[in-house]
Amino acid sequence: MLTTSSPWSPVEQYLKELHQKHAGFKEGIVADYIPELAKANPDWFGICIATRDGHVYEVGDTRQHFTIQSISKALAYGLALEDRGEEFVLSRISVEPSGDAFNAISLKPGSGAPFNPMINAGAIATDGQVLAKDGLSRIQRILAYLSSCAGRSLDIDQTVYKSESETGHRNRAIGWMLRNFGIIEEEPTEILESYFQQCSIRVTCRDLAIMGATLANQGRNPLTREQAIAPDFIDNILSVMSSCGMYDFSGEWLYRVGLPAKSGVGGGILAVLPGQLGIGIFSPPLDEQGNSARGIRVCADLSHDLGLHVFGHGSTPQTCLRLSYDGSQVTSRRHRSVKQQNALRSGGHRLRVLELQGVLIFSTFEPIIRNALKQAPYCRFLILNLRTVMDIDDVSIRLLVELQASLKRQGVHLITSHAERFSRLLLQQGLMAETHFSDADSALEYCENRLLYEILGKEWDVFIPMELGNTSLLSTLNEDELNWLNINMDSKTAQEGDVVIRAGDAADALYLLMSGSVAVYLPSDSSGLGKRLDVFVAGMTFGEMGLIDGSPRSANVVATEKIELRVISRTLFEKMDIEKPIIKIKILESLSCQLSTSLRRSNAEAAAYKG
Amino acid sequence: MLTTSSPWSPVEQYLKELHQKHAGFKEGIVADYIPELAKANPDWFGICIATRDGHVYEVGDTRQHFTIQSISKALAYGLALEDRGEEFVLSRISVEPSGDAFNAISLKPGSGAPFNPMINAGAIATDGQVLAKDGLSRIQRILAYLSSCAGRSLDIDQTVYKSESETGHRNRAIGWMLRNFGIIEEEPTEILESYFQQCSIRVTCRDLAIMGATLANQGRNPLTREQAIAPDFIDNILSVMSSCGMYDFSGEWLYRVGLPAKSGVGGGILAVLPGQLGIGIFSPPLDEQGNSARGIRVCADLSHDLGLHVFGHGSTPQTCLRLSYDGSQVTSRRHRSVKQQNALRSGGHRLRVLELQGVLIFSTFEPIIRNALKQAPYCRFLILNLRTVMDIDDVSIRLLVELQASLKRQGVHLITSHAERFSRLLLQQGLMAETHFSDADSALEYCENRLLYEILGKEWDVFIPMELGNTSLLSTLNEDELNWLNINMDSKTAQEGDVVIRAGDAADALYLLMSGSVAVYLPSDSSGLGKRLDVFVAGMTFGEMGLIDGSPRSANVVATEKIELRVISRTLFEKMDIEKPIIKIKILESLSCQLSTSLRRSNAEAAAYKG
Repeated sequence: MLTTSSPWSPVEQYLKELHQKHAGFKEGIVADYIPELAKANPDWFGICIATRDGHVYEVGDTRQHFTIQSISKALAYGLALEDRGEEFVLSRISVEPSGDAFNAISLKPGSGAPFNPMINAGAIATDGQVLAKDGLSRIQRILAYLSSCAGRSLDIDQTVYKSESETGHRNRAIGWMLRNFGIIEEEPTEILESYFQQCSIRVTCRDLAIMGATLANQGRNPLTREQAIAPDFIDNILSVMSSCGMYDFSGEWLYRVGLPAKSGVGGGILAVLPGQLGIGIFSPPLDEQGNSARGIRVCADLSHDLGLHVFGHGSTPQTCLRLSYDGSQVTSRRHRSVKQQNALRSGGHRLRVLELQGVLIFSTFEPIIRNALKQAPYCRFLILNLRTVMDIDDVSIRLLVELQASLKRQGVHLITSHAERFSRLLLQQGLMAETHFSDADSALEYCENRLLYEILGKEWDVFIPMELGNTSLLSTLNEDELNWLNINMDSKTAQEGDVVIRAGDAADALYLLMSGSVAVYLPSDSSGLGKRLDVFVAGMTFGEMGLIDGSPRSANVVATEKIELRVISRTLFEKMDIEKPIIKIKILESLSCQLSTSLRRSNAEAAAYKG
Repeated sequence: MLTTSSPWSPVEQYLKELHQKHAGFKEGIVADYIPELAKANPDWFGICIATRDGHVYEVGDTRQHFTIQSISKALAYGLALEDRGEEFVLSRISVEPSGDAFNAISLKPGSGAPFNPMINAGAIATDGQVLAKDGLSRIQRILAYLSSCAGRSLDIDQTVYKSESETGHRNRAIGWMLRNFGIIEEEPTEILESYFQQCSIRVTCRDLAIMGATLANQGRNPLTREQAIAPDFIDNILSVMSSCGMYDFSGEWLYRVGLPAKSGVGGGILAVLPGQLGIGIFSPPLDEQGNSARGIRVCADLSHDLGLHVFGHGSTPQTCLRLSYDGSQVTSRRHRSVKQQNALRSGGHRLRVLELQGVLIFSTFEPIIRNALKQAPYCRFLILNLRTVMDIDDVSIRLLVELQASLKRQGVHLITSHAERFSRLLLQQGLMAETHFSDADSALEYCENRLLYEILGKEWDVFIPMELGNTSLLSTLNEDELNWLNINMDSKTAQEGDVVIRAGDAADALYLLMSGSVAVYLPSDSSGLGKRLDVFVAGMTFGEMGLIDGSPRSANVVATEKIELRVISRTLFEKMDIEKPIIKIKILESLSCQLSTSLRRSNAEAAAYKG
């Protein structure tokens, strides 16, 4: 699923200019506390942005390997949380910024708990919480975890690791202090070696961006779709990065850049715009606080130029209400008698549809609740159409269930459609199953039927034996004309499931449905009859379009029960030109009337959907 | 614009339960360092949520007055930024968390700059940056600023102020230290009195929620619509609240609650979910860190129960692409000749419409850019319909302008519609004015015309002198029938602006447009002709609906230039029944064909808009 950017993209263009702008910046000193790090080329410079849907923008040295160093602390913290749970980990490692430098010992007086997991003491304590399990050692698990965040198999730079281990005296002192206070439960030696190896994992700038996008995407790697980090701990990791990720520059970083981030002495910075994207920067020279000097400037520009500050205007919420209309504007595909049509025209506003979209969370669903409650006094049925809803959080599901109960007490039925994807959750929470339809049309038809029952009473759907003169097509004909037709028209019956009209056939007749009902299907590529478009009931006409314009049948029509038909064949229709032109004129006038009614309805629907 | 909540609301219900759950919690001690604060009733307890559109949910003692205390620090910081600018203020007051208690002196060694504006030292230094101006003293300006955030006139509790002033020895020491380091430019006495008064401003829990909603709403008070805080400084204020707002509990607060917040020893907490809502909590007993003990628990529950953590799943972005369709699915209202219709049916996919919605920021507009670039190779015209776009940030405007240029280099024209609200910005940024239409239909028509020119060449719109036999209505008639009609039909001409058909009139004729064009308007409540629905050109029929179903005219039809008409009156139409039934049959067949073509088009449009 590797995607690359287009040379035409203004985003790509912007990043190139940004790279150019900072390429000449020479401040900062490459870390030299171990010889391997000092070998880094100070001119290496990469910028990479990965979106939460896996699109990658990259410019410069984004494929150059370097060691991850302290950036690993943020991710290893996630693994410790998964192994031990939030409360246990919090009892061993606090989450307060220390205001101290990265290598300060900074243990809290009394408990000996490190101030936070982003300083060395906290990070070593964090590694102490990671378990060896499933046949994997601590470092093997950490390596697998980081690989899964990056979406590829990472490895350890053995030379850097050896250097780290040989010179890590201060960290060994920290390890023994942690053992002394009981923050770690075993001798620190193995934990420290894991920590040195973890810091020596080789990554690229692109890896950092993908890791960031994984954090932005609720822990799911956008390239591999693997759930690399448990979603429950994303807010913990990002909070700690936010308050402590940039050493004693963290406050000013949040103020100026406004993105949870973590830097490493290898020259990398990983930054996250939660829910949106990950950023990887690579430039080895460091400033006094130990952060990539050029990286800090690039991130400040990125945040400013693209409006990425978490507390900036980007946090403006989107609306989740896509469309709102009522049952007098849009009707179901179920054809209705004239009486029913009139009832829906005058009473249809008591049926309201809200089409929702996007992600339902408290702040987007809360206005929907208000909208629904405002409509309640004028409403009997409220359909929430969830077709274009991408996700619903637990909070909104709970509120939806409570909204249904509240509306019910006010005499309003809340119905959902297109809730299949969320149905398990909805049913778990107690949403009434009978008020949940898989498609919008069935939901609308169900509500219309109940509304018609309320308006027209028990007789709302009573079958009236159909005579030719009662059909909408022939209602303007006099007795003589009806008699002539009755003698000349064929009769036909069909059983449930019989195909009356098959798409592609020549159109040679128009049908009057005298009893029963038929369904109309639009043929699709897949097998079967296709998509159900219409249901026709007794008294209605079908097949007239082909008879008029001579085009072949465009749909399948299938009897949904035993049906009786009367047939006006092409031969009979042509015979009328000479023998009974007035009958033909009346039929064509009826058809035109019906078509113009349908056209008005369709135009109104198009207008309602257009919003 | 005061709105109250509905007793039926599940949100209201939840808040009541939350209040009940915590009402019995008795930990913490009411602040007693001055006698006035010690008088607070420890049982007072209010919870209030205000949304960014001004809806207020409140439960408990939300109208009880108390002093704002340290919560004022966050807002006064905003005023200092407005008076002096970000860099100046940053040079005097740092933004690093100190890890110290609220009353620590905490000045940075060397510069003497207070660590951050949320500790007393930083807050006093902040007040020192606020200017006396416009005839208002420092405290008058602060009071006016906070009032504007609350949306009502606040006042100062004089008794508390006197107590604060009488016992404020430590703060006086801090003031003189700040003077010593030159952080403030004058003797501290007046600044300190302002500070004591600022802390003594009386607010309610509801005020705090509205202030929070003002911060959430980019500084615009959602009740009064006043721009209370300059939008440029919202991210600064929220960043400082985030890293330092809850004293030495700030790290854990961000971790557990995840909302920028500020507490005061009066028992108040103000919390903000950026872009979404403000929260006010009031409960006087304080914990060891000086935060409202009950307030902390309530906020933790609120954040957990409603999913409000800034780094939680609530940060998932919404999609800004509402609909996507092409020119073969949806056509403009401009009627086309058969040749043109066929050209659009086969080539219309080269014209693409993207309907956008919500707020365009980098992370929502970037996927639109990718979508546009993906379509570019198959496309000649791309319309971005901005009708339901609520806002566009500067970044997206810049990217839109660059996208237009990039598409142009690839031979694709980017057109916008409904961009009036943003047009000043768009034009400033260099979006080509000629490619910007106020409505979707005009944009579509413009692109169709250019596409037709490309497909059909210079002759795309050439006027062919119209004869009766060339009109779509009469194309099936033979010469005799045409002659009979020619003799029996009336002729009529009209000038530009003449009303040919007036809505409400009886329908007594059908018109054939022989030359020129007419526009159809749907009457609206407002004056004028109404909304333009259709444009008919020579060769087309109008007014047939009323003739068929006898209903009165539903629209106004106006000549857009000099026109020539042929008229089939109702009398003539009825006369055909007897004299020339075959002509009537042919006309009705034509009309049915036209109606069924329109119906298919309208159904396709409804389907495209339905998405």
